[in-house]
Amino acid sequence: MVSRRSLTIDTEKATKTTYVLGTTLTVNLIRCAPPQSKSFSIRCTPNVHYKITPPITDKNALPYPLGPNTILLITMDTVSETAFDSKLSVRYYGEKTETLGDAILHLTAVEISLDVDADRDGVVEKNNPNKASWKWGPNGHGAILLVNCDSESINNKKPDNENSDIGKVSDLKDMSKMVLRTNGPSQLPEGYKLSMHISQSTSESVRVFRPRTNTKTENLWKYQLLKLFLKDFLMVVGTDTLTQEVPYLGGSSELEFHVEGLRFPDKDFDGLVTINLSLLEPCGKGFPETPIFTDKVVFRVSPWIMTPNTLKPVEVYVCSTEDNYSFLKSIRNLVEKSGYKLKICHEYMNRGDRWMQDFPYDALLGPDFGYVTRNALNEEVSSLDSFGNLEVSPPVTVNGKNYPLGRIIIGVAFPTARKGRNMTKVVQDFLWAQKVQEPIALYSDWLFVGHVDEFMSFVPAPDRKKFRLLLASPDAGYKVFKSLQNSGLGKAEMFPGKEEAISVNDLLSDKKLQAENRYVQNCIDWNRDVLKKELGLDDEDIIDLPILFKVMEEKNEDSVPRAVAYYPDMVNMIVLGDQLGVPKPFGPQVKGVCALEKEMCSLLEPLGLKCTFIDDFAPYHKLLGEVHCGSNVLREPFTVRWWNLEL
Amino acid sequence: MVSRRSLTIDTEKATKTTYVLGTTLTVNLIRCAPPQSKSFSIRCTPNVHYKITPPITDKNALPYPLGPNTILLITMDTVSETAFDSKLSVRYYGEKTETLGDAILHLTAVEISLDVDADRDGVVEKNNPNKASWKWGPNGHGAILLVNCDSESINNKKPDNENSDIGKVSDLKDMSKMVLRTNGPSQLPEGYKLSMHISQSTSESVRVFRPRTNTKTENLWKYQLLKLFLKDFLMVVGTDTLTQEVPYLGGSSELEFHVEGLRFPDKDFDGLVTINLSLLEPCGKGFPETPIFTDKVVFRVSPWIMTPNTLKPVEVYVCSTEDNYSFLKSIRNLVEKSGYKLKICHEYMNRGDRWMQDFPYDALLGPDFGYVTRNALNEEVSSLDSFGNLEVSPPVTVNGKNYPLGRIIIGVAFPTARKGRNMTKVVQDFLWAQKVQEPIALYSDWLFVGHVDEFMSFVPAPDRKKFRLLLASPDAGYKVFKSLQNSGLGKAEMFPGKEEAISVNDLLSDKKLQAENRYVQNCIDWNRDVLKKELGLDDEDIIDLPILFKVMEEKNEDSVPRAVAYYPDMVNMIVLGDQLGVPKPFGPQVKGVCALEKEMCSLLEPLGLKCTFIDDFAPYHKLLGEVHCGSNVLREPFTVRWWNLEL
Repeated sequence: MVSRRSLTIDTEKATKTTYVLGTTLTVNLIRCAPPQSKSFSIRCTPNVHYKITPPITDKNALPYPLGPNTILLITMDTVSETAFDSKLSVRYYGEKTETLGDAILHLTAVEISLDVDADRDGVVEKNNPNKASWKWGPNGHGAILLVNCDSESINNKKPDNENSDIGKVSDLKDMSKMVLRTNGPSQLPEGYKLSMHISQSTSESVRVFRPRTNTKTENLWKYQLLKLFLKDFLMVVGTDTLTQEVPYLGGSSELEFHVEGLRFPDKDFDGLVTINLSLLEPCGKGFPETPIFTDKVVFRVSPWIMTPNTLKPVEVYVCSTEDNYSFLKSIRNLVEKSGYKLKICHEYMNRGDRWMQDFPYDALLGPDFGYVTRNALNEEVSSLDSFGNLEVSPPVTVNGKNYPLGRIIIGVAFPTARKGRNMTKVVQDFLWAQKVQEPIALYSDWLFVGHVDEFMSFVPAPDRKKFRLLLASPDAGYKVFKSLQNSGLGKAEMFPGKEEAISVNDLLSDKKLQAENRYVQNCIDWNRDVLKKELGLDDEDIIDLPILFKVMEEKNEDSVPRAVAYYPDMVNMIVLGDQLGVPKPFGPQVKGVCALEKEMCSLLEPLGLKCTFIDDFAPYHKLLGEVHCGSNVLREPFTVRWWNLEL
Repeated sequence: MVSRRSLTIDTEKATKTTYVLGTTLTVNLIRCAPPQSKSFSIRCTPNVHYKITPPITDKNALPYPLGPNTILLITMDTVSETAFDSKLSVRYYGEKTETLGDAILHLTAVEISLDVDADRDGVVEKNNPNKASWKWGPNGHGAILLVNCDSESINNKKPDNENSDIGKVSDLKDMSKMVLRTNGPSQLPEGYKLSMHISQSTSESVRVFRPRTNTKTENLWKYQLLKLFLKDFLMVVGTDTLTQEVPYLGGSSELEFHVEGLRFPDKDFDGLVTINLSLLEPCGKGFPETPIFTDKVVFRVSPWIMTPNTLKPVEVYVCSTEDNYSFLKSIRNLVEKSGYKLKICHEYMNRGDRWMQDFPYDALLGPDFGYVTRNALNEEVSSLDSFGNLEVSPPVTVNGKNYPLGRIIIGVAFPTARKGRNMTKVVQDFLWAQKVQEPIALYSDWLFVGHVDEFMSFVPAPDRKKFRLLLASPDAGYKVFKSLQNSGLGKAEMFPGKEEAISVNDLLSDKKLQAENRYVQNCIDWNRDVLKKELGLDDEDIIDLPILFKVMEEKNEDSVPRAVAYYPDMVNMIVLGDQLGVPKPFGPQVKGVCALEKEMCSLLEPLGLKCTFIDDFAPYHKLLGEVHCGSNVLREPFTVRWWNLEL
């Protein structure tokens, strides 16, 4: 916003302009002076004020001497009641104070302010001095904007940001308010216009609507009552419309706008959106108007935020398939016991896909429930692009740096691997661009499926950092089996009663399995070291769960050995407050109790957690997934405001 | 770089690993303890050191009690002479201090450091603690990298960054040095490897070369003498090669690398480049190696920097065409008088294009003379994409913010215009991404050609901000003509002797021309206000040059009136120190002196500047360009280091 405007006045023809309160008009007096002018005097109506620079030192020197750079600074303090009701004139004098000419300026004063909620208190205040910038943190400022990726419609669903109209008035609640406050005569002087405008790139990120009738929308319920729908709102700027005139309402008025965020921050979009409002002045017949005043506001689009296991669950999602009846029953028991809601995605929706971490989006999209997707172009999509490979830690502090929303965790190939599967760049770029949950890339390509949820999870805890990191640990697994052997229970069977049954002695004597688990422990330890560093964890914050892996027999393309869980992978659990739904491991029985379940309980119960072991053997484990892969949880959002982060 | 590494030891089988000086190995003692272990003791060779956490409080409690989270921290202080020459063993005891097992660890210690010139003193120091990060400013740190966009070749020219080989040894001087310092036994233990690796996106920005023979390249002249050419350097990582083994030389050695920058910062590239070096440990037959240590260095690629008119010229470029012989002669005189070099781009090279601001690149590309281009995809290219529309200001300070390299200036359409020509987004994005000369967008679409150099220039000055902004000013132009009329010279002719000749009286009575110039002055004033604000200028820093414009008669596509200079546009000048080559305006003669030339001299000579008026009427002005459009100047670079900017 340029608040000083150069203006030329003319002794041959009166000049007319419109002045915006708070700005200054600067007139270079020598520029329009008749030749041989030596001095000047000024007269003006009472609401017009002026200063001369360089200042006239001799106050009695009337008329004022005209220097080579004498500048007149004009301001006004009240708005006009009618067009051009104010006036200023400059009289030029020659050597002998003879009058050489009069330059006359007719002025209309108006007040214009494009306003947003820059102080984040829910009210669109008037002309906040910080409205055109954005700063993170509790002492920061700047308006915010949601990405309108939910759907108000119940039928024929599509995210609202893919709809160019406002389908329902309730959709306005997903938008931010913006107000154009103006004050002045009942009409702008002839030829003047107000224009809202955005840049080409901004038009991909935002749309601005206003009511077709210039009514205040303060009481939204009135709209509801009147059943005013999409035809009553028009898009001012947005997709394919970079600039459009907006009405000047006259007198002291407020025109309300509704601003809709269209996309999340990404590699090519920092999340900031600028909306401009200019006053255009006519330049004479046949010439385009010139913007003589521009006001500007900035919004930041909300980042996409994940919710960790430590947040309170609201609803649990799970698929129903032809073969998972008893699994579903166990999950239902667990969820109902815990007092949460369960939503089942039936076969006609899931089309046989049971992996609830990649839930079909048609079923969930609805009011206040949105989604975002990224399409990989020119990139190979792999198993690592499933969202068992996308997790988030609870809040942590690392070397004094706070992550009050936790950190996103994904799995990729080792950077030193010549070949390897990675999460697609387009998704990784998206995740990093959100900024508020700075991601950590773990190494998960050693797994056949390749997901971080195959070797790690987080559970709430009453002490220390208020959570524990759970890691699958072959060492901890072997320890259980060796203890059994040492206690004379070497003949007890793993997988009792199943065709896979094998004695503890036989399992422990399998050197190939040992070598594979040595390799797996190395891979997990590498991740353990990264997690300790990036989440600021001590060994006391980590619990090793007794889980063995094995290398898949079938050769993959790049013939790198890749691992799967040897028995149901207990770390791949569902966490519902203090209730854990854990894959039932089918370990050796000791006095009727599974040794692996017992070990799990002894590790987790001291934290006040309750393990419920769920049989997922046939419908999930054998298909290389477990309870976590087969479920999803909607949780209460963080109470921490993302804009209060210090970034 | 994770400097703490988890390690598992085993009572059944000795463990071997390689230790990197400066790191810590952490062993969870309970994890590998035989069942029923209650306490432990430790023995090690003298160069191995250990700590136990939580610390053993009772120093006499031998053997030490084994707690649920007893961690052994292992460090070493000297490198090994042979593989596995060091050892540590843990003995576990049962309830009655009977020995339950010994876990033995064989260790090889090496030193590894990937090094760059992070303190920017021209020397690649050893293991700078800041080598893996980058900070702007005189108290900042971080290595820098040139974009190798010149060409060492004289024939068959192509920028070196488009050549995947090192064509000449002199090309190494355009690269940054990086050194891998290692110390340890003559060979790494069996199966261990060093691997250099970069990310997919980094591979588009950088290439790393090393001599094929492992010789120090300290004395480059030796290479010159030996005529060692491209075959003697091999690419380690870069385009299509993300990871590659590098040799371990044994003993205390240095392996030199040459790092080549491939592209300038841009919208999708912040300029930072990370190069990693990992030590890989074998994981047993059939399993991929695991990185057990990673060192990391960061470079920032140099931004693309423009040189303002206030920098000392080195060489002037101009095209020769069939019709510009006398223009060329004038330029030659001016350049030779000023003591600079002149390079003429002959017709066979310029193919009839005289606009030297868009010089054909084949002619100039050569050693230490590079270029960068951007191709517009899916975008309309307009006249605003010529580089008379791309200028740079001298250094300025604006509201306390320093721009020691000045600010880039481009011209675009008014943001409020429904139709309008803009500089392509791909070029604008590039310019903004350079950061060190933060661009200013002016409004130039009001001009038929649409270039900022049609209404503005900068000249050096001895006082104030050490420069003046020159602006074309119809008001200042009319003032000259009115003065002539007032002095009784109304019959004097503009364009004397030319077919366009017109008397001062006739010119002043042309109301259409007046209206057009009123509009033009408005457009220029809008830019003046932006420049004052964005460059922190006062009116005293600006000189208004007497130049009239006219609106082109021929209708353009969007039928918006667009302006061209009415007489040769004197602001479109070439600035060579205190010598200005100014388009000869052909103004009315007063006592044999051109009134416009006289006014120009009276405005500029007080600054110690000398105007030479160059006749460009037929070969340039009539084709809608002038002296500046038809020339280009290579200038001495800034002495300010870009990395010392506080961004």
